Amino acid sequence: MNKPTLLISALLLLMVWTAKAQTTPPAVVEDFKPSVVNQPGKQYPQVNSEGRVRVQISAPEAHKVQLDISAVKYDLVKDEKGVWTGESAPQDEGFHYYQLWVDGAAVPDPGSLYFYGASRWGSGIEVPAKDQDFYAMKNVPHGQVREIHYFSESNNAMRRCFIYTPPGYDQDLTKRYPVLYLQHGGGEDETGWSNQGRANLIMDNLIAEGKATPFIIVMDNGTWAMPNRPRPNPQAGPNQQARLAQGERPAGPWPPTGWADGFKKTLVEEIIPMVDANFRTLADQPHRAMAGLSMGGMQTRVITLAHPELFSHVGMFSGGSYSPEDVANAPGFKEKIKFLFVSFGSRELENRRAGFGGDPQANTEALKNAGMNTHFYVSPLTAHEWQSWRRSLYEFAQRIFK
Amino acid sequence: MNKPTLLISALLLLMVWTAKAQTTPPAVVEDFKPSVVNQPGKQYPQVNSEGRVRVQISAPEAHKVQLDISAVKYDLVKDEKGVWTGESAPQDEGFHYYQLWVDGAAVPDPGSLYFYGASRWGSGIEVPAKDQDFYAMKNVPHGQVREIHYFSESNNAMRRCFIYTPPGYDQDLTKRYPVLYLQHGGGEDETGWSNQGRANLIMDNLIAEGKATPFIIVMDNGTWAMPNRPRPNPQAGPNQQARLAQGERPAGPWPPTGWADGFKKTLVEEIIPMVDANFRTLADQPHRAMAGLSMGGMQTRVITLAHPELFSHVGMFSGGSYSPEDVANAPGFKEKIKFLFVSFGSRELENRRAGFGGDPQANTEALKNAGMNTHFYVSPLTAHEWQSWRRSLYEFAQRIFK
Repeated sequence: MNKPTLLISALLLLMVWTAKAQTTPPAVVEDFKPSVVNQPGKQYPQVNSEGRVRVQISAPEAHKVQLDISAVKYDLVKDEKGVWTGESAPQDEGFHYYQLWVDGAAVPDPGSLYFYGASRWGSGIEVPAKDQDFYAMKNVPHGQVREIHYFSESNNAMRRCFIYTPPGYDQDLTKRYPVLYLQHGGGEDETGWSNQGRANLIMDNLIAEGKATPFIIVMDNGTWAMPNRPRPNPQAGPNQQARLAQGERPAGPWPPTGWADGFKKTLVEEIIPMVDANFRTLADQPHRAMAGLSMGGMQTRVITLAHPELFSHVGMFSGGSYSPEDVANAPGFKEKIKFLFVSFGSRELENRRAGFGGDPQANTEALKNAGMNTHFYVSPLTAHEWQSWRRSLYEFAQRIFK
Repeated sequence: MNKPTLLISALLLLMVWTAKAQTTPPAVVEDFKPSVVNQPGKQYPQVNSEGRVRVQISAPEAHKVQLDISAVKYDLVKDEKGVWTGESAPQDEGFHYYQLWVDGAAVPDPGSLYFYGASRWGSGIEVPAKDQDFYAMKNVPHGQVREIHYFSESNNAMRRCFIYTPPGYDQDLTKRYPVLYLQHGGGEDETGWSNQGRANLIMDNLIAEGKATPFIIVMDNGTWAMPNRPRPNPQAGPNQQARLAQGERPAGPWPPTGWADGFKKTLVEEIIPMVDANFRTLADQPHRAMAGLSMGGMQTRVITLAHPELFSHVGMFSGGSYSPEDVANAPGFKEKIKFLFVSFGSRELENRRAGFGGDPQANTEALKNAGMNTHFYVSPLTAHEWQSWRRSLYEFAQRIFK
């Protein structure tokens, strides 16, 4: 063949190969195992070593069933017994919300445990992560997660929070502890940080390895203290999923006007005094921290800029950053804040979802150059999702109250 | 008309009336309100003043959707937008499990909160009860429900329990408390007594009214300590729904051989010592009680007959009774047990579901006549369901540790 003929042949081959690659889905690795957050005894959903999620549901009379995960819907295939099975593309390591569609009905998967996110109780799945050891359940001394009900004057309602007390809290009754106020994201509630985030296991493991100072963590609801949110029903019972939460986004602009102010008032005037009155806290600014993810990070920013006399250690996970202008306009903030931590998932930075008020890494470095003790952390190969926030808490918790 | 003609006419009229009554469904009272255990912001499911449950779900491509409650399936009706709606017959007052069927798929209702029962996490609903005040969330001092993780040598695994500490437990650090070990039923787990049972609200309200001595309640998992049950996955996380439970019934006879012995060993050798080591208990027989519902009542019977040196107050809710022969064959039981409480829902007695080893009321009265301090309680117009057990705890808790 002459050169032009050779070139044309090569191009044709390339085109055929490309077309084949586009139409033939990649082979699925058949090493699926049940998800570790399945309901007891349930074999599905499953996850394979690529991070694909496979679901299965019996629906003999249905004509269309789909798996809906990470904003993509995957068609399932029906067998002769009426059982539908199918899997997703590979997912990032860590925790993901998902749901099923059965003939147009969006429903939870009957095989999974349920988690509050996207303003609903729905299915969740764990894609095993290379670093999953830091949030694994181990035979180490464990703290407690306590469900607390208290009356809020400003909301004129009963509220609920979960409070983590570290191992040993009930042994040495003379010891007092620092406190971290740790907030969930939009569409989530006070159950998120322990259910999806595994905040208590992260702390138990860090403390067992001597890597973190033991402290109390207060996980309250940052959503329904906002103005004009419907009240939770006071008949709703205890120890249960969002009974005292309101996760639906209201109509109108988001976040609504005053969204952080409502929670600021509740936190500063009611939650902190309630915690200091009922737990053995070190009730002063040097021993009080605040952090949050996404919307909770934005609330952390607004609240700590307004009240640097209350908090010394601050963490903002996937929620933006503090700009030099923020700090310049917040009297006392620069001097009083002993540690400022800002983090994102690497895919958030790639996707420029980290915009909120300027480049977060540049902002954080500018504050460091101006003399503040800051730390910028990037979670490898994760997006705006719980694996980023577990890792952020793990990094943050080792650096506070030292 | 002569007398035979009159009689025949009357009979015909009666037949017509009866046929009409059988074929015309009674009118539904249109005063439905959202259930108090709905997810935040969800308008369905709803309940009306008759106790009917109305559900609604969008499923535009489905051709058959049903509500499945109290072992009856009700067809829903589709509107022009593809939204299905329908209601059940009147239900008993109190809490009920239910599910939906969408074209043959059994799924949770996306509108309800989820509860562990029937060996799965599924939908639940509250039919308002005339006596619901005793388990309502009120602005009274509240105790805490604490999630505890501990290592069990005999199970060679991490286990989980929930422990209720009464109001004031964290204020007066010198005070010690009696303890009630309180067990769930078959297909349920350690979350049942606080989620469905509202044990903590019942206690908070009783204590606020001065009707009960404050005590600690330990709610552990009575199922997966049984022999030959699969272990929970140690990767499963905290503060979550049955991660350390196993609710599926194994193949073979039920209960399996040794079903109570497995939990007896775990309770006596591990749970009680763990609780006495980590909580401010009054760690002796006069200040220790055990009670349970259904399977948990049967476990209570086996364990307290074997160990009257450990427990002084005993409660058996819808789980059978202690016969005079039981007591005669259990050395020390008659002398050491200070109070023996046996209860059923009235519909259980009507339906003769209360059989387990003789008539429970006759057995309990025989023991009273033999000199024991017993109490037999019947929950009005309820069956083998949570309203019977909430009321049983309410009655039991007022009579122990006095």
